[in-house]
Amino acid sequence: MNKARKSFPLAKVYGLLEPGPVVLVTTACNGHPDIMAMSWHTMLEFEPPLVVCVISNRNHSFALLKATKECVINIPTVEIAEKVVDCGNTHGAKMSKFEKFGLTPVPASQVGAPLIKECFANLECRVVDTKLVNSYCFFVLEVVKAWIDPSVKNPKTIHHLGNGSFMVAGERIKLRSKMK
Amino acid sequence: MNKARKSFPLAKVYGLLEPGPVVLVTTACNGHPDIMAMSWHTMLEFEPPLVVCVISNRNHSFALLKATKECVINIPTVEIAEKVVDCGNTHGAKMSKFEKFGLTPVPASQVGAPLIKECFANLECRVVDTKLVNSYCFFVLEVVKAWIDPSVKNPKTIHHLGNGSFMVAGERIKLRSKMK
Repeated sequence: MNKARKSFPLAKVYGLLEPGPVVLVTTACNGHPDIMAMSWHTMLEFEPPLVVCVISNRNHSFALLKATKECVINIPTVEIAEKVVDCGNTHGAKMSKFEKFGLTPVPASQVGAPLIKECFANLECRVVDTKLVNSYCFFVLEVVKAWIDPSVKNPKTIHHLGNGSFMVAGERIKLRSKMK
Repeated sequence: MNKARKSFPLAKVYGLLEPGPVVLVTTACNGHPDIMAMSWHTMLEFEPPLVVCVISNRNHSFALLKATKECVINIPTVEIAEKVVDCGNTHGAKMSKFEKFGLTPVPASQVGAPLIKECFANLECRVVDTKLVNSYCFFVLEVVKAWIDPSVKNPKTIHHLGNGSFMVAGERIKLRSKMK
């Protein structure tokens, strides 16, 4: 485990995913990890944090997630945007994306899939509902452990606009909101 | 209809929602419209564009959407961020949020709910699957008509970080992605 990485409160996880960043989902089966880029996710519940994500059955990760029911959602920043796109452009069945793209797997504490060291946040997840996998490739995940690199302030997450265009997280503003 | 507003291809709708902006959902019943702020949404299919959103049954809009099965997803920019928060902070059962917050309803072409003129994009939606409403307050929507104000370049959408903090859309980058 990266010494800089700190446990992050589960009650605050929604604030990491609600802004809609591209994430890297890691899965692993029999010691072989895979990475996929994903943008189609949303929060479903604050606490315990539930996340819904859409993972196409054309992805190698689909089979791994269905078989193991475990994954890690890793949140990258613009500094590794090229690696994120590399992960999205390739199919993991016959290659190690970690080796190929210079990413570092770090053992998770609760699940078999690895964390990606180069990402500023890592959410260890278990699949808790597969009722919609067949109809919509929809997985309901519970975040069971969250990690963050506290040295990263105002992370410049990337947000997919389609066809290789991304928006990079800009300034932060504070408004008088009663919303959680 | 705002003369500046143009029809937008349904095949490109995912690029508006995939980056994860806060949106304003409008509903209407018996001529009484409501507006709610929402961040918990994701794309589910490219074309026809399907969107999944989580709308709590504590919201007035929940009942309106369940009854009418129609809504409009309006995408605001930082210029009206205060109005977005006002909509999120208030309950629509006994007030007109349009009047109260100085927003302008514009008739939609396919659904009974109004567009919000002050938003740069408007997606007319029909509910196509209610199987998950009871278990997760999950609505599956099909976007049946999309509008955009083409004069708005690089819209500064807002993205909720929790407790009144928002990230404003920053710079755009282009990478060699094979992703749609």
